[in-house]
Order: sequence, then C-alpha cells, then structure tokens
Amino acid sequence: MNDCPSFSDGLPLDRTASVPVWRQILSDIEFEIRGGLVASGQKLPSELELSRRYGVNRHTVRMALLKLADKGLVVSRQGAGVFVTDEQPEYRIARQPSTSELEQAMNDAATGELIASYRRPTSHYLAGLLQIDRGGELLVLETLRQAGSRLLSYGYHYFDAARFAGIDTAFARLRSLSATLAEFDCRRLLRRATWIDTRMPRKVEAAALGIDLDEPVIVLSYVDTDGEGRPVLFGNTVLRGGTVRVRVETT
Amino acid sequence: MNDCPSFSDGLPLDRTASVPVWRQILSDIEFEIRGGLVASGQKLPSELELSRRYGVNRHTVRMALLKLADKGLVVSRQGAGVFVTDEQPEYRIARQPSTSELEQAMNDAATGELIASYRRPTSHYLAGLLQIDRGGELLVLETLRQAGSRLLSYGYHYFDAARFAGIDTAFARLRSLSATLAEFDCRRLLRRATWIDTRMPRKVEAAALGIDLDEPVIVLSYVDTDGEGRPVLFGNTVLRGGTVRVRVETT
Repeated sequence: MNDCPSFSDGLPLDRTASVPVWRQILSDIEFEIRGGLVASGQKLPSELELSRRYGVNRHTVRMALLKLADKGLVVSRQGAGVFVTDEQPEYRIARQPSTSELEQAMNDAATGELIASYRRPTSHYLAGLLQIDRGGELLVLETLRQAGSRLLSYGYHYFDAARFAGIDTAFARLRSLSATLAEFDCRRLLRRATWIDTRMPRKVEAAALGIDLDEPVIVLSYVDTDGEGRPVLFGNTVLRGGTVRVRVETT
Repeated sequence: MNDCPSFSDGLPLDRTASVPVWRQILSDIEFEIRGGLVASGQKLPSELELSRRYGVNRHTVRMALLKLADKGLVVSRQGAGVFVTDEQPEYRIARQPSTSELEQAMNDAATGELIASYRRPTSHYLAGLLQIDRGGELLVLETLRQAGSRLLSYGYHYFDAARFAGIDTAFARLRSLSATLAEFDCRRLLRRATWIDTRMPRKVEAAALGIDLDEPVIVLSYVDTDGEGRPVLFGNTVLRGGTVRVRVETT
C-alpha cells in the first residue's frame, strides 16, 4: 500500500557535494511538506520506502527524519510510522493587528532573557530610521524570547541610547518588552513595515536557539513607532527556519 | 582612520564546527549589512582590519567577501576598498497591487524557461486549495524565471490538470506565465495570502539558480485566484537568500 501517492519519487542527489546526502533529503522532504504535497496528518513513506526512492541506506534517511522531527515538522508514532504534524505557528503580518500576534506574544511574555546589551555608534541609516541626533549612539539589546511552549526567537533591539538610557536593566528585571517599554511611556507600538530575509545563523544565535550552524534562520526586520508615529525601535527577529510560517494577508 | 565605526568587533567564531570559519564570518557581515549597521555606500573595514577583528588570516576574510560580492551585497572598487551596494530589489507584498511588482515582472517577462513538467496525484490539502475534484490530478510546472537583469527565481506552479491541460506546452512556447494564463482566460490574478519560509535548496534549484547547496533560499508560497475568486494556481517561488528583501507594508 502506498500511503502517500503524492510524494515524489526522489530527486537526484549530489553525492559529490560537501553537503551530506541526508541534508539534501531533508530539503527535499521539507519541500514536499511545505509545498502541501504531503499535508498535516498524512503519513510519510516508510524509512525503507524512502531509502529505495533516494537510493540511500536507511540510516541516511533516518538522519533526515530525526531532523524533521526536531524541527517539529513530523512526529513518529511507535509502530505506526512518521506523520506530518499539524500546521505550525503562523507569524501573521497583517494590517490589523498592527503587529503580529506572535510578535505581540513574545513582547508580552515575562520570560525574556537579556543575552547582551551594549552601546555602539549608529550608522547614518539607523540614525535616520530612529531619528537619532548627530553624534548619538545606539543602545542594543540582544534577547532570547519565546511565544507559546516551543517557539524561540533571538532578537536585536536598537534604541536611541539617550532617550532609552537604562532600558537594558529594565528589561533584565521585567523580562517583557511590552512591560519595559511601558516604563518609557511607550504603551502601544505600531509596525510600519517588515523586511524578511534568510541567512545562516551567527554563533550566538545558534547557541541560544539550540540549532546547528548549518541550519538557516529567517530574519524579520522592522521599525516600530509609537501612537504618534515617532520611531521607538528598530528590531531584528531571528527564527529557526521551518518552525514558523510567516503569513502575509493581502485580502 | 576607522571607516566604519558602527561595525562590530567580531563575535566569537566556532572553530570546531563543521561549518567553515569563512561562512561564519559571512553570516556576521550579512547581519551587519541587513541590520543597517553598515549602510548602502559605506565602506567595510579593510581585509586586514577584518582579519584582526576576527582573528583569522586574510585569505579566510577574502572568501567571505567574495561570497558577499557574488550575492550582490558588496562591491569591490579597485584601490578604494569594499563598499556596501545600493539597496537590493524589494519583493514588496502589499494590498495594492494585488501581487508583488517583482512577481508581476517575473510573470510578464517572456524569458521563462520550462525546467520540467509532470502530473502527480494531488494531496487533500492542494485539492482543497485548488478545488480539484476527487480523483483529479495536479499538473506541475517547474520554471526558471527572471526579473530585471539579475534576480532569478525557481518556481513551482501547481494547476488542476483537467482544467489546465496543455499549459506546460503553452508556457514552453510563450515563456511568460501571464501570456500563458491569458490563453486559459485567466487575465488578472489576485493573491490572497503569502507564506514565507526558508530552507536549504534542492539540487535542481541550486543548479538552476547557480548557487551552492549550502546557501539558504527563501520560499514564498501563495495561492492566486482569478477576478471571481476562483483558485488558479498554487505557487512556490524560490529565491536565493540575501539577494532580495521581501517587504511587507502594514500602514
């Protein structure tokens, strides 16, 4: 019986590449799952079946399946096989609410960790974005925050060091970005625009998120303003690829 | 003279990781550029300066700089140094126009290449999305398209095989998705939602996009409908990470 008729027959792998074959199989199965060709609740072909399709041994297939399980894309049920999990959390970017619900949850939760904070000279670009005076400095907070039980986010938060002096110690005490900003009279943030890109993680990010250095991350960059349109912070949210679906509504 | 005061001092690298040190430096500089800490037109610290900051030899720094140049993030000017390039193309997702200008440009250009086309059984999920009848099949087109002079996109386009029979040969002839869809009486596509994720490329994608297997890609998934709200296609657009900034407007 073929549990998964829509699953591909296995595409050519590059056996001479520096990237291990199991990682190439991982990309291929991620493609199948993300592309909706194998949907939530569906059973993946068995290890044996996959090893035939890709022409590799079962151990190689198992490594790909273990990584998929670690990312939360599949779950193994004893004796029954490997199934695609329910849909993963969505980081929804829409007009309303003005910021993503997931970002809001990360801002509100009082479980944030201050990984580092430091001052650094500002670039012209960030000085412009944050309306920092000539000669002003940035105060940067690097944080590890979570939303729900699983989703971790490594964040960079850039503030005008003069206007937000002491925000690092406030965050270390309150552990919630919303509560911290409230102490600085910023109670409701509006998000103007979000830029999305991908890259490989920096060492600090990989360590904090508990991922390998060769797993890509999604980076969301944004500017938050207060109710009067005055810029409050420039932020970078770093998420493990595959663990969250960024969703943009255009209707 | 320090050309770039806002540039970081170089973060700890993991010398025992399976990921080469130059790739870790690449991630670090990508972070600086994407985070706006070194802005367009600014000069990067010199090779010598970077090799001191990271505690590596100049050859290692040069490999990271070459990859940055290949991605179009920096440009080297003979005798003057390495500069951050102007901002890269934006793949803008907004309410209006109903689809991204960049996606529109890729649809309109008559330079598309049909890499592969095939039928495959549909999953319940895609049958639901595309309103395919029970027992219906998918017709999949894999294409390589471009927008402007540089930006390449590897695309997967899933159609109801019954309704769009022959669309693969039409695309191979017309080489533009817009022109092809017009032959099937779909003249104006509306995009309902876009999901964004990242993963490592599949072999076919890496080969077509001209990138390495260990460079992450951005994957945009979407459903396009016709003017009456009837689903036309489910698509996946695969872009090289770092070469395009996906921008979401929320104002």
